[in-house]
Amino acid sequence: MTWKRKDLLGLEELSSEEISLILQTAKSFKEVSTRQIKKVPALRGRTVVNLFFEPSTRTKTSFELAAKRLSADVLSFEVSTSSVSKGETIVDTARNIEAMKVDCFIVRHSVSGAPWLIARSVKAAVINAGDGCHEHPTQALLDLFTVQERFGHLKGLSVAIIGDIRHSRVARSNIWGFSKMGVRVIVCGPPPLVPLGIEEMGCEVTYRLEEAIRQADIIYLLRLQKERQRENYLPSLQEYSRLFGLEERHYQGMNKPFFLMHPGPMNRGVEIRSCLAEKSNSLILEQVTNGIAVRMAVLYLTMGSQR
Amino acid sequence: MTWKRKDLLGLEELSSEEISLILQTAKSFKEVSTRQIKKVPALRGRTVVNLFFEPSTRTKTSFELAAKRLSADVLSFEVSTSSVSKGETIVDTARNIEAMKVDCFIVRHSVSGAPWLIARSVKAAVINAGDGCHEHPTQALLDLFTVQERFGHLKGLSVAIIGDIRHSRVARSNIWGFSKMGVRVIVCGPPPLVPLGIEEMGCEVTYRLEEAIRQADIIYLLRLQKERQRENYLPSLQEYSRLFGLEERHYQGMNKPFFLMHPGPMNRGVEIRSCLAEKSNSLILEQVTNGIAVRMAVLYLTMGSQR
Amino acid sequence: MTWKRKDLLGLEELSSEEISLILQTAKSFKEVSTRQIKKVPALRGRTVVNLFFEPSTRTKTSFELAAKRLSADVLSFEVSTSSVSKGETIVDTARNIEAMKVDCFIVRHSVSGAPWLIARSVKAAVINAGDGCHEHPTQALLDLFTVQERFGHLKGLSVAIIGDIRHSRVARSNIWGFSKMGVRVIVCGPPPLVPLGIEEMGCEVTYRLEEAIRQADIIYLLRLQKERQRENYLPSLQEYSRLFGLEERHYQGMNKPFFLMHPGPMNRGVEIRSCLAEKSNSLILEQVTNGIAVRMAVLYLTMGSQR
Repeated sequence: MTWKRKDLLGLEELSSEEISLILQTAKSFKEVSTRQIKKVPALRGRTVVNLFFEPSTRTKTSFELAAKRLSADVLSFEVSTSSVSKGETIVDTARNIEAMKVDCFIVRHSVSGAPWLIARSVKAAVINAGDGCHEHPTQALLDLFTVQERFGHLKGLSVAIIGDIRHSRVARSNIWGFSKMGVRVIVCGPPPLVPLGIEEMGCEVTYRLEEAIRQADIIYLLRLQKERQRENYLPSLQEYSRLFGLEERHYQGMNKPFFLMHPGPMNRGVEIRSCLAEKSNSLILEQVTNGIAVRMAVLYLTMGSQR
Repeated sequence: MTWKRKDLLGLEELSSEEISLILQTAKSFKEVSTRQIKKVPALRGRTVVNLFFEPSTRTKTSFELAAKRLSADVLSFEVSTSSVSKGETIVDTARNIEAMKVDCFIVRHSVSGAPWLIARSVKAAVINAGDGCHEHPTQALLDLFTVQERFGHLKGLSVAIIGDIRHSRVARSNIWGFSKMGVRVIVCGPPPLVPLGIEEMGCEVTYRLEEAIRQADIIYLLRLQKERQRENYLPSLQEYSRLFGLEERHYQGMNKPFFLMHPGPMNRGVEIRSCLAEKSNSLILEQVTNGIAVRMAVLYLTMGSQR
Repeated sequence: MTWKRKDLLGLEELSSEEISLILQTAKSFKEVSTRQIKKVPALRGRTVVNLFFEPSTRTKTSFELAAKRLSADVLSFEVSTSSVSKGETIVDTARNIEAMKVDCFIVRHSVSGAPWLIARSVKAAVINAGDGCHEHPTQALLDLFTVQERFGHLKGLSVAIIGDIRHSRVARSNIWGFSKMGVRVIVCGPPPLVPLGIEEMGCEVTYRLEEAIRQADIIYLLRLQKERQRENYLPSLQEYSRLFGLEERHYQGMNKPFFLMHPGPMNRGVEIRSCLAEKSNSLILEQVTNGIAVRMAVLYLTMGSQR
């Protein structure tokens, strides 16, 4: 199959064939970053714009490196100092930048749907780098890639996603992605942080960490945003950590081993005891490495589709 | 003719032949941005420094892209975090950066004349990207380019510049540029925002929008800085908008059509009714597109002149 | 000899042979920046990360240009907007970036030892771009390069370092560097700003500027941080300037000429009378020029050592 979409806005709308195509393309790009000369000319002379309305050095850097390794030119549009603060609409901003003949926008915004709004207003490719509590598709794709690489397949595995499911775009994209690829998804967190009816997305729910761990091949810890406590979703971080934080004892008496994943940055001592992040079952740094390959694939496919 | 100047500081000092040379060079560069590989090797290995003492993502991005499409290396000198805040003079700053063997400075500063001060202190090319209320030459050049491209010529046309003439470097550069190229220039705005004696620059004055529109082939709306109200130049934005904002009714009963221009970013609802910006007579996005070509030309000519 | 270290953390640990190797390598790179096409392909496809936890446009720009002139890709990790503000440790930050397969970190941090902490946690090269009051090795190397280039040799010369010795990483690196290369080092400043026992680093101490000048071939003025006054190290800037500021009269009646150096940015009127910075004996801009060559050498040697 070939890629037909101009944009990558979320995993909800993708078919499993489209997801497979991205993972397969990423596989062929992964090798590039292991070379001494980490560069291929695939997108030479193309212009990629990082349009981040919400700060994120990590994701921005990953996209920037991915674009540079494909030989594209990368512009970072710093929104705090930009015309947006002068009262321009985001569509005006995007259209104006597009008029400079750019090929792709990487968009992060605190409002769900903002990348979609831009996508339908411009001819350039738009990649969602995280919008509100909605989706973060490249994060889920790199997670799928990491699991597939480790197990050799996806179908038939089980992943438990632990934490603040309610506010997590990472959780949402991963529920869509894993379930579409035949992976059983169990979500687990404090009741106020697990939306009622989430089962309709194709996942199971438990409120007990031990039960989630017992059933899963992969434990996927979400980052706990400390502001949730202020918003009265949590009695205290200590409480959260005691009930949902991963500890040494969870490794004991397991009938089967599990792998550990986290989208970063970690709150050491909150969702995870500090010493566990470096254990041999942790895939956390592999996720970061694979992020480059997956983003190279997404840039390549969406921009290629303009031809 | 060939280009002889090291710097581009303003249009006041340029001859019509020099302006023509820039427009002609821009024409040949415009095609580059329509290619799939938007890059020519003209300035490979040259170093261009964005030295912005005033924030401006839009102009900075346009220059950055122009430089990259000529294969130059671009450095952005972020002034808020720079030595300038440690009390260094701007000439010291520029001389120090020049000692790293850079070829060109793009300078924006809130003080009129700052680019000139730097230009006479360094051997590198200096391009004024907007200084105080003085000049913004590349904006006017891209405006000239856009009009010439649309009409096939400049001579004999009429342009009406509407808004805060007093504080606008865009207006000043455009008055010099258009009048040198044989275009009749009418300026129009509330009396406190039109300097007395501005006719000496070679333009006409009216205080009635309808009269300006009736006579012009191009309506050039300036951005109204909302701080003007606080400074007591305006009774209210509503008042301004009612008297000088472009509305649907201005399109009716015209004896001839007009084109609409704006340097961006627009205040929708202040200097223009929101729906009008997308009308077919709007050249606003073409201006942005042409900004890249004109800045490529200016970079190429000024840096070429060092050889 | 060949370079064997993965990192450049300070001059204290380097042998004079290693310092000579860097200076020699820098010499061959200096010519690159005088070409019209200021670029060699030595590090094409390598990724260099500017990891600055303390603002510094000048040093960051110098490293960025050095890396670009070697054709490396450069990423700037802006720490104010980064995950560090989300409570991540600096080692986590560095390991995460390294997982994106980067080749070199340029680290500046307000805490002494931070680059060392990162260096032992990653396989990538780490270059100290200034850590707390500890070391700033590339500054001292460019100073050594500048003196050697001017005199043709280092051995047997005398340098007087004037100012706030106590808080200066530039002073510390220069004391190590100059004394290892056979240059006599005299430090001079107000007693509270000269640490007791500093002679053990291999330098002499005087508290009188005239005495320092009388003995030195090179006067190296440090930048006086104005916050020292608030911290009660100084009665007043005027006092400091009167006793330790370089003035016209110091040029009169000298039995031998001296050269003037300063790491920038200068406090004109504090450590130096404004007019003296441009005198013919000033090597200040040469230092900046040589910074590029020395940093190219350091990037080339440390990254080459990974092969």
